[in-house]
Amino acid sequence: MKNINRRKFIQKTSMASAAVGVSSFLTNPINAQSTRPLSSTYMGDFAAPPLNIVRAAFIGVGARGGTHLKFFAGLPNTEVVAISDLYEDLVNEKLGWLTEVVGATNSKNCKLYWGDEDRWKTMLQDIKPDVVFIATNWANHAPMAIESMKQGAHAFVEVPIAVTLKEMWDIVDTSEQTKKHCMMMENVNYGRDELLFLNMVRQGLLGDLLHAEAAYIHELRWQMEEQERGTGSWRTHHYAKRNGNLYPTHGLGPVAQYMNLGRGVDTFKSLVSYSSPSIGRSMYAKENYPANHKWNQLNFEGGDINTSIIKTQLGRTVLVQWDETSPRPYSRLNLIQGVKGALAGFPTRVALEGGVLGITDDHHTWVQGEKLQAVYDKYDHPLYKRLNETAKNSGHGGMDGIMMYRIVECLQQGIPLDQNVYEGCFWSAVAPLSEKSVSEEGMPQAFPDFTRGSWKNTLPLSIIT
Amino acid sequence: MKNINRRKFIQKTSMASAAVGVSSFLTNPINAQSTRPLSSTYMGDFAAPPLNIVRAAFIGVGARGGTHLKFFAGLPNTEVVAISDLYEDLVNEKLGWLTEVVGATNSKNCKLYWGDEDRWKTMLQDIKPDVVFIATNWANHAPMAIESMKQGAHAFVEVPIAVTLKEMWDIVDTSEQTKKHCMMMENVNYGRDELLFLNMVRQGLLGDLLHAEAAYIHELRWQMEEQERGTGSWRTHHYAKRNGNLYPTHGLGPVAQYMNLGRGVDTFKSLVSYSSPSIGRSMYAKENYPANHKWNQLNFEGGDINTSIIKTQLGRTVLVQWDETSPRPYSRLNLIQGVKGALAGFPTRVALEGGVLGITDDHHTWVQGEKLQAVYDKYDHPLYKRLNETAKNSGHGGMDGIMMYRIVECLQQGIPLDQNVYEGCFWSAVAPLSEKSVSEEGMPQAFPDFTRGSWKNTLPLSIIT
Ligand SMILES: NC(=O)c1ccc[n+]([C@@H]2O[C@H](COP(=O)([O-])OP(=O)(O)OC[C@H]3O[C@@H](n4cnc5c(N)ncnc54)[C@H](O)[C@@H]3O)[C@@H](O)[C@H]2O)c1
Ligand SMILES: NC(=O)c1ccc[n+]([C@@H]2O[C@H](COP(=O)([O-])OP(=O)(O)OC[C@H]3O[C@@H](n4cnc5c(N)ncnc54)[C@H](O)[C@@H]3O)[C@@H](O)[C@H]2O)c1
Repeated sequence: MKNINRRKFIQKTSMASAAVGVSSFLTNPINAQSTRPLSSTYMGDFAAPPLNIVRAAFIGVGARGGTHLKFFAGLPNTEVVAISDLYEDLVNEKLGWLTEVVGATNSKNCKLYWGDEDRWKTMLQDIKPDVVFIATNWANHAPMAIESMKQGAHAFVEVPIAVTLKEMWDIVDTSEQTKKHCMMMENVNYGRDELLFLNMVRQGLLGDLLHAEAAYIHELRWQMEEQERGTGSWRTHHYAKRNGNLYPTHGLGPVAQYMNLGRGVDTFKSLVSYSSPSIGRSMYAKENYPANHKWNQLNFEGGDINTSIIKTQLGRTVLVQWDETSPRPYSRLNLIQGVKGALAGFPTRVALEGGVLGITDDHHTWVQGEKLQAVYDKYDHPLYKRLNETAKNSGHGGMDGIMMYRIVECLQQGIPLDQNVYEGCFWSAVAPLSEKSVSEEGMPQAFPDFTRGSWKNTLPLSIIT
Repeated sequence: MKNINRRKFIQKTSMASAAVGVSSFLTNPINAQSTRPLSSTYMGDFAAPPLNIVRAAFIGVGARGGTHLKFFAGLPNTEVVAISDLYEDLVNEKLGWLTEVVGATNSKNCKLYWGDEDRWKTMLQDIKPDVVFIATNWANHAPMAIESMKQGAHAFVEVPIAVTLKEMWDIVDTSEQTKKHCMMMENVNYGRDELLFLNMVRQGLLGDLLHAEAAYIHELRWQMEEQERGTGSWRTHHYAKRNGNLYPTHGLGPVAQYMNLGRGVDTFKSLVSYSSPSIGRSMYAKENYPANHKWNQLNFEGGDINTSIIKTQLGRTVLVQWDETSPRPYSRLNLIQGVKGALAGFPTRVALEGGVLGITDDHHTWVQGEKLQAVYDKYDHPLYKRLNETAKNSGHGGMDGIMMYRIVECLQQGIPLDQNVYEGCFWSAVAPLSEKSVSEEGMPQAFPDFTRGSWKNTLPLSIIT
């Protein structure tokens, strides 16, 4: 924190506010909830009792769920106690694959649940797992996470944590009431470059941080091919009905942690958002499906590209973009600008005042490509080194593996998770807030303070060694 | 225009407006002026009577003015009739340099004006030039341009065209009353890549255009070294007093012309803007100057990085960033995204659905670096080819040379200029509008319609051959 002079920032910010008069939308933020009940616990730095053996159930084993299963099942002192999905073939296939292909030995007593939409509830009651991994369609995230916590399990939920602000508050309230973790599994925070940048930022190489850029630019129109089952079958309807930044967390999660948003130093304040016209999806449907196809019956209202800007309490800015439709190479932007230099992604680039490790002399050229090796050598994050280098063959080098390793490690040691429930909510809140801003032609929207002021006392994520 | 289905866009936009109710700030745009007086002329496609010999005066020959002098003096059928600046040494030096170094023969009768702040007015009355090139500090742009037009000259003004919306309206009104051009000299619109992209976009390679990104990211803190004379002496005060996107036009000008904003197809509607904290300039002053130095007496209120988003009438979006303070390599972003592909700058990159000229197969990888040669070979703009290749030794290959060549060519032929007075105002208006949005914590601001509705009948910039 030595590089962030919070008092200086706050002075400036409050002077500015006094000068111009704070707009009422910011002094009376919508969705501010009443104070936290006395029986509830703030979960910002919450450490749950250690679990010697982690008994996990999995709900939703479509395209994504299998990854969690695989990495979890490969870890010591774990047990796969249940797998649930709508489809019998999927749960059978995933369990078979786990034992036969992955060679897992900790799923011997695994029970399978399928069929009815509510079978997962029976599973929770039958099995009473320690933790539940949820990788279903978005609408099911909140109800499943909330019920899991109520049934005594820590909930680990795919991105985004929920769809509406109301659901996010319900998740927060339930977590605080039940003293169960609810972590949104933002795997990108465990990417090598993201960990590298976190490490460099924490070492003060950029000085005070001013601005970040995050995105999910990933052309995924082909998912529309999945029409009755799979991602495309439900995600396409979100694109059709909602207009905003629907998938903000992959880009935002990492930069929010560089900046310590919601963690002692600074937090989310407001957001403005504009969407481009909606053309690409209906054009794609017209080109690829017959006129009477169900995708050609949809009226796609969601703009192809959303561009939002977040303003933080200290006045810092974060650009957040989303585009899963337009033809363009993949990018999450991953840019962080400080007063002494900048780090950026896609491709990975480093520029520091005075130059980077003697490779450059000043900040006017990026260090990138092969020249980055020296940067990795010096600044790779200790967590990445531990899981990639010391344990090269563990399969945990990738972001998904590292994330699962850390989840299980934290649960077994009874220490706080790397991402708390409020972070999952803040990052996911960009979706509904941007939808509102877009529908009001760019009007700023206040972030709800899911921590009810407690972010001020939450520790920044430490450099995990 | 075949690639822009205006009716479709408008249908969508008006449906969306009906659904959510248009905010009052947009239906009652501030700064909307009364209807155009009958005695005034709309200048969108204005063609002035041809000038056989172009007699030009130059006001302001500091860091920038010399470039205009040099390129102008090298063109046939021109005359340099006057040079004016505050400083005697500067006007002498520039004239000497013109004859001795540049070898110009058309400045034999050139008169020099210096000393008093108002000497340029005497110059206008004495000389009655056909055209005036203005490259002074920003505060002088509007008064000098307006007086030049009143004295019968076409005005060519450096960027931005003016500082306040009021000044912009006065420029528009004067131009319309006097039937004199007032062109803001956005040289970047004549860059090779910008002309390339314009050409590719007009050929329909990207399909309908959705979104653009523009910036002026150029670390210029060193200009603070100029303390009594020169850019730093006046520009530093803008950074200290104003908080917004102060220099938007280099990035915005080109993308606005790709998108035909203000030209028949679409126009500027509104803008939201957030600035980062202001740290870099005061930090730099503290590190480089004694405590009692004048830069250390300033309270720098302008945020180091400004991020703004423009929404157009058709709902398209343009990101506009500005940062002359933070250490980072130069960029103007220069990104244009259409439904069939994307073009981007810094570094130059091309991605098209189905691939680019057989070099790539799809849009998931950029064509860049040496592979771009085939793209240049096929799509270089005819204007660039004419002035760079056919006349390789003319010195007009660079953007400044091409711009001056075109200005003189249009004046001599009596055809419309490539940038009309409204474009200069729209592009420059981002500065005051962003200042207002920033001071109101991100509130959307409506663009004034400087064309008073006439943009609908203005022709898109043609592909000049
Ligand atoms: N973090 C990442 O990198 C990443 C990558 C892909 C997807 N995701 C996220 O993972 C989640 C799942 O996406 P996906 O692509 O695997 O989708 P998917 O449709 O392939 O998988 C979802 C599964 O949930 C099951 N399901 C739905 N309702 C259920 C219910 N009531 N009970 C039991 N099972 C139910 C479905 O049958 C399906 O098999 C989404 O939230 C998505 O955003 C994250
Ligand atoms: N398009 C580009 O690429 C580009 C590049 C640099 C600067 N510019 C623009 O050019 C303009 C000038 O910038 P600069 O860097 O040359 O600044 P500068 O301070 O070096 O030059 C401005 C000149 O105007 C003169 N001047 C000021 N008031 C005057 C008056 N009343 N009468 C006569 N002369 C007067 C000054 O003496 C000075 O020599 C600015 O608008 C700047 O934004 C554009």
